[in-house]
Amino acid sequence: MAQDNIKIVLVGPLYGGNIGSACRAMSNMGVSELRLVAPDASVDWDEAKKMAVHADALLAARKTFNALADAVADCIAVVGTTARRGLYRQHAKAPREWAGEIEALSGRGPVAIVFGREDSGLSNEEILQCTHLVQIPSSSQYASLNIAQAVMVMCYEMFIAQGDFEPVKEKSELASGEVRSRMYDIWREYLLETEFMSDDTADHMMAAFNRIFSRGVLTLDDANIMMGVVRQSRWARGR
Amino acid sequence: MAQDNIKIVLVGPLYGGNIGSACRAMSNMGVSELRLVAPDASVDWDEAKKMAVHADALLAARKTFNALADAVADCIAVVGTTARRGLYRQHAKAPREWAGEIEALSGRGPVAIVFGREDSGLSNEEILQCTHLVQIPSSSQYASLNIAQAVMVMCYEMFIAQGDFEPVKEKSELASGEVRSRMYDIWREYLLETEFMSDDTADHMMAAFNRIFSRGVLTLDDANIMMGVVRQSRWARGR
Repeated sequence: MAQDNIKIVLVGPLYGGNIGSACRAMSNMGVSELRLVAPDASVDWDEAKKMAVHADALLAARKTFNALADAVADCIAVVGTTARRGLYRQHAKAPREWAGEIEALSGRGPVAIVFGREDSGLSNEEILQCTHLVQIPSSSQYASLNIAQAVMVMCYEMFIAQGDFEPVKEKSELASGEVRSRMYDIWREYLLETEFMSDDTADHMMAAFNRIFSRGVLTLDDANIMMGVVRQSRWARGR
Repeated sequence: MAQDNIKIVLVGPLYGGNIGSACRAMSNMGVSELRLVAPDASVDWDEAKKMAVHADALLAARKTFNALADAVADCIAVVGTTARRGLYRQHAKAPREWAGEIEALSGRGPVAIVFGREDSGLSNEEILQCTHLVQIPSSSQYASLNIAQAVMVMCYEMFIAQGDFEPVKEKSELASGEVRSRMYDIWREYLLETEFMSDDTADHMMAAFNRIFSRGVLTLDDANIMMGVVRQSRWARGR
Protein backbone atom coordinates (compact mmCIF):
# COMPACT_ATOMS: atom_id res chain seq x y z
CA MET A 1 0.00 0.00 0.00
CA ALA A 2 1.30 3.45 -0.92
CA GLN A 3 0.46 4.75 2.56
CA ASP A 4 3.16 2.38 3.93
CA ASN A 5 5.74 4.39 2.02
CA ILE A 6 4.90 7.63 3.83
CA LYS A 7 7.50 8.30 6.55
CA ILE A 8 6.80 11.07 9.04
CA VAL A 9 10.05 12.74 10.12
CA LEU A 10 10.15 15.07 13.14
CA VAL A 11 13.37 17.08 13.40
CA GLY A 12 14.51 17.96 16.92
CA PRO A 13 11.13 17.59 18.66
CA LEU A 14 11.00 19.06 22.18
CA TYR A 15 7.73 17.84 23.69
CA GLY A 16 6.59 14.28 24.30
CA GLY A 17 2.93 15.27 24.10
CA ASN A 18 3.43 16.53 20.56
CA ILE A 19 5.26 13.37 19.51
CA GLY A 20 2.47 11.21 20.95
CA SER A 21 -0.27 13.34 19.37
CA ALA A 22 1.52 13.06 16.03
CA CYS A 23 1.55 9.25 16.40
CA ARG A 24 -2.21 9.19 16.99
CA ALA A 25 -2.84 11.47 14.00
CA MET A 26 -0.66 9.24 11.78
CA SER A 27 -2.45 6.11 12.94
CA ASN A 28 -5.86 7.73 12.37
CA MET A 29 -4.81 8.37 8.78
CA GLY A 30 -3.20 4.98 8.10
CA VAL A 31 0.44 6.13 8.23
CA SER A 32 2.66 3.86 10.30
CA GLU A 33 6.31 4.91 10.38
CA LEU A 34 7.72 7.63 12.61
CA ARG A 35 11.31 8.81 12.30
CA LEU A 36 12.87 11.23 14.77
CA VAL A 37 15.97 13.31 14.16
CA ALA A 38 17.87 14.18 17.35
CA PRO A 39 14.88 14.49 19.72
CA ASP A 40 15.58 16.80 22.65
CA ALA A 41 17.04 15.12 25.75
CA SER A 42 14.15 16.52 27.83
CA VAL A 43 11.41 14.71 25.87
CA ASP A 44 8.87 13.19 28.27
CA TRP A 45 8.26 9.72 26.79
CA ASP A 46 5.51 8.89 29.29
CA GLU A 47 3.59 11.95 28.08
CA ALA A 48 4.21 10.82 24.48
CA LYS A 49 2.74 7.37 25.25
CA LYS A 50 -0.26 8.96 26.97
CA MET A 51 -1.09 11.17 23.99
CA ALA A 52 -0.49 8.37 21.46
CA VAL A 53 -3.36 6.39 23.11
CA HIS A 54 -3.92 3.38 20.81
CA ALA A 55 -0.98 4.37 18.58
CA ASP A 56 1.54 3.38 21.28
CA ALA A 57 2.98 0.54 19.16
CA LEU A 58 3.72 3.04 16.38
CA LEU A 59 5.46 5.27 18.94
CA ALA A 60 7.49 2.35 20.32
CA ALA A 61 8.58 1.34 16.79
CA ARG A 62 9.99 4.82 16.01
CA LYS A 63 13.42 5.06 14.42
CA THR A 64 15.89 7.68 15.64
CA PHE A 65 18.64 9.36 13.60
CA ASN A 66 21.35 11.91 14.27
CA ALA A 67 20.74 14.06 11.19
CA LEU A 68 18.01 14.68 8.63
CA ALA A 69 20.23 13.34 5.81
CA ASP A 70 20.35 9.93 7.57
CA ALA A 71 16.60 9.89 8.20
CA VAL A 72 15.78 10.47 4.51
CA ALA A 73 18.65 8.49 2.95
CA ASP A 74 16.26 5.87 1.48
CA CYS A 75 13.58 8.36 0.37
CA ILE A 76 12.88 9.21 -3.28
CA ALA A 77 11.12 12.42 -2.27
CA VAL A 78 11.51 14.64 0.77
CA VAL A 79 8.60 16.95 1.50
CA GLY A 80 9.50 19.76 3.87
CA THR A 81 6.85 21.70 5.77
CA THR A 82 7.33 25.37 6.52
CA ALA A 83 5.28 28.07 8.22
CA ARG A 84 7.68 30.84 7.24
CA ARG A 85 7.82 32.49 3.87
CA GLY A 86 11.22 33.66 2.84
CA LEU A 87 14.62 32.55 1.70
CA TYR A 88 14.56 29.15 -0.04
CA ARG A 89 10.84 28.80 0.72
CA GLN A 90 9.24 30.76 -2.12
CA HIS A 91 8.30 27.70 -4.15
CA ALA A 92 6.21 26.09 -1.37
CA LYS A 93 2.73 24.91 -2.35
CA ALA A 94 -0.39 24.13 -0.32
CA PRO A 95 -0.84 20.48 0.80
CA ARG A 96 -3.78 19.96 -1.54
CA GLU A 97 -1.70 21.09 -4.54
CA TRP A 98 0.99 18.48 -3.79
CA ALA A 99 -1.18 15.66 -2.41
CA GLY A 100 -1.79 13.91 -5.73
CA GLU A 101 1.86 14.00 -6.73
CA ILE A 102 3.10 12.86 -3.32
CA GLU A 103 0.57 10.03 -3.34
CA ALA A 104 1.79 8.95 -6.80
CA LEU A 105 5.45 9.11 -5.69
CA SER A 106 4.68 7.02 -2.62
CA GLY A 107 3.64 4.26 -5.00
CA ARG A 108 7.23 4.20 -6.30
CA GLY A 109 9.32 4.38 -3.11
CA PRO A 110 9.62 5.83 0.41
CA VAL A 111 8.55 9.47 0.74
CA ALA A 112 9.50 11.54 3.80
CA ILE A 113 7.28 14.30 5.12
CA VAL A 114 9.48 16.44 7.34
CA PHE A 115 8.44 18.71 10.21
CA GLY A 116 10.81 21.14 11.96
CA ARG A 117 11.42 22.04 15.57
CA GLU A 118 8.49 23.41 17.62
CA ASP A 119 10.35 26.70 18.18
CA SER A 120 12.36 27.30 15.01
CA GLY A 121 11.15 24.98 12.22
CA LEU A 122 13.60 23.63 9.66
CA SER A 123 16.96 25.31 9.05
CA ASN A 124 17.89 26.58 5.59
CA GLU A 125 20.36 23.69 5.32
CA GLU A 126 17.53 21.22 6.03
CA ILE A 127 15.18 22.97 3.58
CA LEU A 128 17.79 22.44 0.86
CA GLN A 129 17.53 18.67 1.38
CA CYS A 130 13.85 18.76 0.43
CA THR A 131 12.53 17.98 -3.05
CA HIS A 132 9.10 19.47 -2.31
CA LEU A 133 8.04 22.25 0.05
CA VAL A 134 4.63 22.59 1.65
CA GLN A 135 3.09 25.52 3.47
CA ILE A 136 -0.18 24.75 5.26
CA PRO A 137 -2.70 27.57 4.68
CA SER A 138 -3.33 29.43 7.93
CA SER A 139 -4.48 32.76 9.29
CA SER A 140 -2.10 35.69 8.91
CA GLN A 141 -3.01 36.54 12.55
CA TYR A 142 -1.55 33.28 13.88
CA ALA A 143 0.18 31.26 11.21
CA SER A 144 2.17 28.75 13.25
CA LEU A 145 0.48 25.38 13.78
CA ASN A 146 1.26 22.98 16.59
CA ILE A 147 3.50 20.30 15.09
CA ALA A 148 1.08 17.42 15.76
CA GLN A 149 -1.69 19.48 14.11
CA ALA A 150 0.54 20.00 11.07
CA VAL A 151 1.17 16.23 10.97
CA MET A 152 -2.61 15.67 11.04
CA VAL A 153 -3.30 18.09 8.17
CA MET A 154 -0.63 16.48 5.97
CA CYS A 155 -1.65 12.88 6.79
CA TYR A 156 -5.34 13.78 6.31
CA GLU A 157 -4.65 15.27 2.88
CA MET A 158 -2.63 12.16 1.90
CA PHE A 159 -5.40 9.87 3.21
CA ILE A 160 -8.01 11.72 1.15
CA ALA A 161 -5.73 11.71 -1.92
CA GLN A 162 -5.30 7.96 -1.57
CA GLY A 163 -9.07 7.71 -1.86
CA ASP A 164 -9.71 4.31 -0.33
CA PHE A 165 -11.83 5.59 2.54
CA GLU A 166 -15.25 4.00 2.47
CA PRO A 167 -17.76 6.75 3.21
CA VAL A 168 -20.80 6.07 5.35
CA LYS A 169 -23.54 4.52 3.29
CA GLU A 170 -27.21 4.81 4.08
CA LYS A 171 -28.77 1.40 4.42
CA SER A 172 -32.01 2.40 2.68
CA GLU A 173 -31.98 2.94 -1.07
CA LEU A 174 -32.90 6.40 -2.32
CA ALA A 175 -36.52 7.17 -3.17
CA SER A 176 -37.26 6.98 -6.89
CA GLY A 177 -39.19 9.66 -8.78
CA GLU A 178 -42.24 7.37 -8.77
CA VAL A 179 -42.14 7.00 -4.96
CA ARG A 180 -41.61 10.72 -4.47
CA SER A 181 -44.57 11.65 -6.63
CA ARG A 182 -46.76 9.06 -4.87
CA MET A 183 -45.75 10.66 -1.58
CA TYR A 184 -46.65 14.15 -2.82
CA ASP A 185 -50.02 12.88 -4.18
CA ILE A 186 -50.92 11.28 -0.85
CA TRP A 187 -49.99 14.47 1.03
CA ARG A 188 -51.95 16.65 -1.41
CA GLU A 189 -55.09 14.56 -0.88
CA TYR A 190 -54.62 14.56 2.86
CA LEU A 191 -54.01 18.32 3.17
CA LEU A 192 -57.17 18.93 1.11
CA GLU A 193 -59.18 16.47 3.25
CA THR A 194 -58.16 18.22 6.48
CA GLU A 195 -58.72 21.63 4.87
CA PHE A 196 -55.14 22.59 5.69
CA MET A 197 -55.30 24.01 2.17
CA SER A 198 -58.04 24.61 -0.38
CA ASP A 199 -58.14 23.78 -4.09
CA ASP A 200 -57.16 27.41 -4.72
CA THR A 201 -54.03 27.30 -2.58
CA ALA A 202 -53.07 23.65 -3.15
CA ASP A 203 -50.51 24.20 -5.91
CA HIS A 204 -48.82 26.99 -4.00
CA MET A 205 -48.68 25.00 -0.76
CA MET A 206 -47.49 21.81 -2.47
CA ALA A 207 -44.63 23.79 -4.02
CA ALA A 208 -43.54 24.59 -0.46
CA PHE A 209 -43.76 20.90 0.52
CA ASN A 210 -41.76 20.01 -2.54
CA ARG A 211 -39.13 22.58 -1.59
CA ILE A 212 -38.92 21.32 2.01
CA PHE A 213 -38.44 17.71 0.95
CA SER A 214 -36.02 18.54 -1.83
CA ARG A 215 -33.40 20.23 0.34
CA GLY A 216 -31.55 16.92 0.21
CA VAL A 217 -32.11 13.45 -1.16
CA LEU A 218 -34.86 11.34 0.42
CA THR A 219 -34.42 7.64 1.03
CA LEU A 220 -37.18 5.10 0.44
CA ASP A 221 -37.45 4.76 4.25
CA ASP A 222 -37.94 8.54 4.55
CA ALA A 223 -40.72 8.52 1.92
CA ASN A 224 -42.44 5.53 3.54
CA ILE A 225 -42.41 7.30 6.91
CA MET A 226 -44.01 10.42 5.39
CA MET A 227 -46.71 8.32 3.67
CA GLY A 228 -47.25 6.39 6.91
CA VAL A 229 -48.02 9.64 8.73
CA VAL A 230 -50.94 10.30 6.37
CA ARG A 231 -52.23 6.74 6.66
CA GLN A 232 -52.15 6.88 10.44
CA SER A 233 -53.72 10.35 10.60
CA ARG A 234 -56.65 9.14 8.50
CA TRP A 235 -57.04 6.13 10.78
CA ALA A 236 -56.97 8.34 13.90
CA ARG A 237 -59.48 10.73 12.38
CA GLY A 238 -61.79 7.83 11.46
CA ARG A 239 -61.91 6.47 15.00
CA MET B 1 -16.52 37.85 7.56
CA ALA B 2 -18.23 34.47 7.29
CA GLN B 3 -15.49 32.86 9.41
CA ASP B 4 -16.74 35.01 12.35
CA ASN B 5 -20.03 33.11 12.20
CA ILE B 6 -18.39 29.74 12.83
CA LYS B 7 -18.82 28.73 16.49
CA ILE B 8 -16.84 25.77 17.77
CA VAL B 9 -18.83 23.91 20.45
CA LEU B 10 -17.15 21.30 22.67
CA VAL B 11 -19.63 19.19 24.63
CA GLY B 12 -18.43 17.91 28.02
CA PRO B 13 -14.68 18.25 27.40
CA LEU B 14 -12.49 16.46 29.96
CA TYR B 15 -8.94 17.64 29.30
CA GLY B 16 -7.55 21.18 29.42
CA GLY B 17 -4.79 20.30 26.96
CA ASN B 18 -7.37 19.37 24.34
CA ILE B 19 -9.36 22.57 24.90
CA GLY B 20 -6.20 24.67 24.58
CA SER B 21 -5.04 22.79 21.46
CA ALA B 22 -8.49 23.31 19.93
CA CYS B 23 -8.16 27.08 20.59
CA ARG B 24 -4.80 27.20 18.81
CA ALA B 25 -6.18 25.22 15.85
CA MET B 26 -9.18 27.58 15.62
CA SER B 27 -6.97 30.65 15.74
CA ASN B 28 -4.62 29.18 13.08
CA MET B 29 -7.65 28.85 10.82
CA GLY B 30 -9.25 32.23 11.57
CA VAL B 31 -12.11 30.97 13.76
CA SER B 32 -12.56 32.96 16.94
CA GLU B 33 -15.46 31.79 19.11
CA LEU B 34 -15.32 28.83 21.47
CA ARG B 35 -18.40 27.57 23.29
CA LEU B 36 -18.23 24.88 25.96
CA VAL B 37 -21.13 22.78 27.16
CA ALA B 38 -20.74 21.54 30.74
CA PRO B 39 -16.95 21.11 30.79
CA ASP B 40 -15.79 18.52 33.31
CA ALA B 41 -15.03 19.85 36.81
CA SER B 42 -11.54 18.34 36.58
CA VAL B 43 -10.48 20.42 33.53
CA ASP B 44 -6.94 21.79 34.05
CA TRP B 45 -7.25 25.39 32.84
CA ASP B 46 -3.52 26.08 33.24
CA GLU B 47 -2.82 23.22 30.84
CA ALA B 48 -5.45 24.67 28.46
CA LYS B 49 -3.71 28.05 28.51
CA LYS B 50 -0.33 26.42 27.91
CA MET B 51 -1.54 24.52 24.83
CA ALA B 52 -3.45 27.53 23.46
CA VAL B 53 -0.11 29.42 23.23
CA HIS B 54 -0.94 32.67 21.35
CA ALA B 55 -4.68 31.79 21.27
CA ASP B 56 -5.02 32.44 25.00
CA ALA B 57 -7.34 35.42 24.47
CA LEU B 58 -9.70 33.18 22.47
CA LEU B 59 -9.62 30.67 25.35
CA ALA B 60 -10.31 33.37 27.92
CA ALA B 61 -13.28 34.68 25.89
CA ARG B 62 -14.99 31.24 25.80
CA LYS B 63 -18.69 31.03 26.59
CA THR B 64 -20.00 28.24 28.81
CA PHE B 65 -23.47 26.67 28.70
CA ASN B 66 -25.31 23.97 30.62
CA ALA B 67 -26.76 22.14 27.63
CA LEU B 68 -26.15 21.85 23.90
CA ALA B 69 -29.55 23.38 23.14
CA ASP B 70 -28.50 26.59 24.91
CA ALA B 71 -25.14 26.71 23.15
CA VAL B 72 -26.73 26.50 19.69
CA ALA B 73 -29.89 28.52 20.37
CA ASP B 74 -28.79 31.33 18.00
CA CYS B 75 -27.40 29.05 15.27
CA ILE B 76 -29.08 28.56 11.89
CA ALA B 77 -27.16 25.33 11.31
CA VAL B 78 -25.71 22.82 13.75
CA VAL B 79 -23.02 20.55 12.34
CA GLY B 80 -22.39 17.50 14.51
CA THR B 81 -19.19 15.48 14.22
CA THR B 82 -19.24 11.75 14.77
CA ALA B 83 -16.64 8.98 14.61
CA ARG B 84 -19.21 6.22 15.04
CA ARG B 85 -21.43 4.90 12.30
CA GLY B 86 -24.77 3.69 13.42
CA LEU B 87 -28.14 4.77 14.70
CA TYR B 88 -29.04 8.34 13.60
CA ARG B 89 -25.60 8.73 12.00
CA GLN B 90 -26.07 7.08 8.60
CA HIS B 91 -26.49 10.34 6.69
CA ALA B 92 -23.11 11.78 7.78
CA LYS B 93 -20.89 13.17 5.02
CA ALA B 94 -17.17 13.88 4.82
CA PRO B 95 -16.02 17.43 5.76
CA ARG B 96 -15.08 18.26 2.18
CA GLU B 97 -18.58 17.34 0.98
CA TRP B 98 -20.18 19.78 3.43
CA ALA B 99 -17.54 22.53 3.48
CA GLY B 100 -19.00 24.59 0.63
CA GLU B 101 -22.54 24.47 2.05
CA ILE B 102 -21.43 25.25 5.60
CA GLU B 103 -19.33 28.14 4.32
CA ALA B 104 -22.36 29.49 2.42
CA LEU B 105 -24.61 29.11 5.49
CA SER B 106 -22.07 30.94 7.65
CA GLY B 107 -22.61 33.94 5.38
CA ARG B 108 -26.25 33.99 6.54
CA GLY B 109 -25.97 33.45 10.29
CA PRO B 110 -24.14 31.70 13.14
CA VAL B 111 -23.22 28.08 12.43
CA ALA B 112 -22.18 25.70 15.22
CA ILE B 113 -19.69 22.90 14.65
CA VAL B 114 -20.17 20.50 17.55
CA PHE B 115 -17.68 18.00 18.98
CA GLY B 116 -18.59 15.35 21.56
CA ARG B 117 -16.90 14.10 24.70
CA GLU B 118 -13.39 12.63 24.40
CA ASP B 119 -14.63 9.26 25.66
CA SER B 120 -18.15 8.89 24.32
CA GLY B 121 -18.81 11.50 21.61
CA LEU B 122 -22.27 13.00 21.20
CA SER B 123 -25.37 11.28 22.59
CA ASN B 124 -28.23 10.30 20.31
CA GLU B 125 -30.28 13.11 21.85
CA GLU B 126 -27.53 15.60 20.94
CA ILE B 127 -27.17 14.17 17.41
CA LEU B 128 -30.89 14.85 16.88
CA GLN B 129 -30.28 18.57 17.49
CA CYS B 130 -27.90 18.68 14.51
CA THR B 131 -28.93 19.83 11.04
CA HIS B 132 -25.78 18.39 9.40
CA LEU B 133 -23.60 15.43 10.38
CA VAL B 134 -19.93 15.05 9.53
CA GLN B 135 -17.70 12.03 9.78
CA ILE B 136 -13.99 12.75 9.30
CA PRO B 137 -12.44 10.07 7.06
CA SER B 138 -10.02 7.93 9.06
CA SER B 139 -8.40 4.52 9.13
CA SER B 140 -10.62 1.58 10.00
CA GLN B 141 -7.73 0.41 12.25
CA TYR B 142 -7.97 3.49 14.48
CA ALA B 143 -10.91 5.68 13.59
CA SER B 144 -11.15 7.92 16.65
CA LEU B 145 -9.39 11.28 16.37
CA ASN B 146 -8.24 13.38 19.29
CA ILE B 147 -10.86 16.13 19.71
CA ALA B 148 -8.42 19.01 19.04
CA GLN B 149 -7.27 17.22 15.88
CA ALA B 150 -10.90 16.90 14.77
CA VAL B 151 -11.36 20.64 15.42
CA MET B 152 -8.29 21.31 13.26
CA VAL B 153 -9.54 19.19 10.35
CA MET B 154 -12.95 20.92 10.36
CA CYS B 155 -11.53 24.45 10.73
CA TYR B 156 -8.90 23.72 8.06
CA GLU B 157 -11.57 22.55 5.59
CA MET B 158 -13.66 25.66 6.33
CA PHE B 159 -10.62 27.90 5.91
CA ILE B 160 -9.82 26.33 2.53
CA ALA B 161 -13.49 26.55 1.48
CA GLN B 162 -13.50 30.24 2.35
CA GLY B 163 -10.65 30.61 -0.12
CA ASP B 164 -9.11 33.88 1.00
CA PHE B 165 -5.72 32.41 1.87
CA GLU B 166 -2.97 34.09 -0.12
CA PRO B 167 -0.62 31.34 -1.29
CA VAL B 168 3.12 31.88 -1.40
CA LYS B 169 4.13 33.63 -4.58
CA GLU B 170 7.53 33.34 -6.21
CA LYS B 171 9.10 36.75 -6.61
CA SER B 172 10.60 35.95 -10.01
CA GLU B 173 8.32 35.76 -13.02
CA LEU B 174 8.18 32.44 -14.85
CA ALA B 175 10.53 31.83 -17.77
CA SER B 176 8.90 32.41 -21.17
CA GLY B 177 9.19 29.94 -24.06
CA GLU B 178 11.70 32.29 -25.67
CA VAL B 179 13.94 32.31 -22.57
CA ARG B 180 13.70 28.55 -22.18
CA SER B 181 14.72 27.87 -25.78
CA ARG B 182 17.61 30.35 -25.47
CA MET B 183 18.73 28.43 -22.37
CA TYR B 184 18.58 25.08 -24.20
CA ASP B 185 20.47 26.55 -27.20
CA ILE B 186 23.25 27.87 -24.97
CA TRP B 187 23.54 24.51 -23.20
CA ARG B 188 23.55 22.61 -26.49
CA GLU B 189 26.46 24.68 -27.80
CA TYR B 190 28.34 24.34 -24.54
CA LEU B 191 27.89 20.57 -24.25
CA LEU B 192 29.12 20.20 -27.84
CA GLU B 193 32.14 22.49 -27.18
CA THR B 194 33.18 20.45 -24.13
CA GLU B 195 32.54 17.20 -26.04
CA PHE B 196 30.12 16.09 -23.30
CA MET B 197 28.09 14.99 -26.33
CA SER B 198 28.71 14.69 -30.07
CA ASP B 199 26.59 15.86 -32.99
CA ASP B 200 25.29 12.27 -33.21
CA THR B 201 24.09 12.12 -29.61
CA ALA B 202 23.12 15.79 -29.17
CA ASP B 203 19.40 15.45 -29.87
CA HIS B 204 19.08 12.46 -27.57
CA MET B 205 21.00 14.15 -24.75
CA MET B 206 19.16 17.46 -25.11
CA ALA B 207 15.87 15.58 -24.78
CA ALA B 208 17.13 14.41 -21.38
CA PHE B 209 18.02 17.99 -20.40
CA ASN B 210 14.63 19.14 -21.54
CA ARG B 211 13.01 16.42 -19.42
CA ILE B 212 15.04 17.33 -16.33
CA PHE B 213 14.15 21.03 -16.57
CA SER B 214 10.52 20.41 -17.40
CA ARG B 215 9.67 18.47 -14.23
CA GLY B 216 8.26 21.71 -12.95
CA VAL B 217 8.00 25.31 -14.06
CA LEU B 218 11.23 27.34 -14.27
CA THR B 219 11.37 30.96 -13.23
CA LEU B 220 13.31 33.60 -15.13
CA ASP B 221 15.83 33.59 -12.23
CA ASP B 222 16.27 29.82 -12.62
CA ALA B 223 16.89 30.12 -16.37
CA ASN B 224 19.34 33.00 -15.89
CA ILE B 225 21.29 30.94 -13.35
CA MET B 226 21.55 28.00 -15.77
CA MET B 227 22.72 30.29 -18.59
CA GLY B 228 25.20 31.93 -16.21
CA VAL B 229 26.78 28.55 -15.48
CA VAL B 230 27.66 28.18 -19.18
CA ARG B 231 29.02 31.73 -19.44
CA GLN B 232 31.23 31.25 -16.39
CA SER B 233 32.43 27.80 -17.50
CA ARG B 234 33.53 29.25 -20.82
CA TRP B 235 35.37 32.05 -19.00
CA ALA B 236 37.11 29.57 -16.68
CA ARG B 237 38.12 27.36 -19.60
CA GLY B 238 39.52 30.37 -21.50
CA ARG B 239 41.78 31.44 -18.66
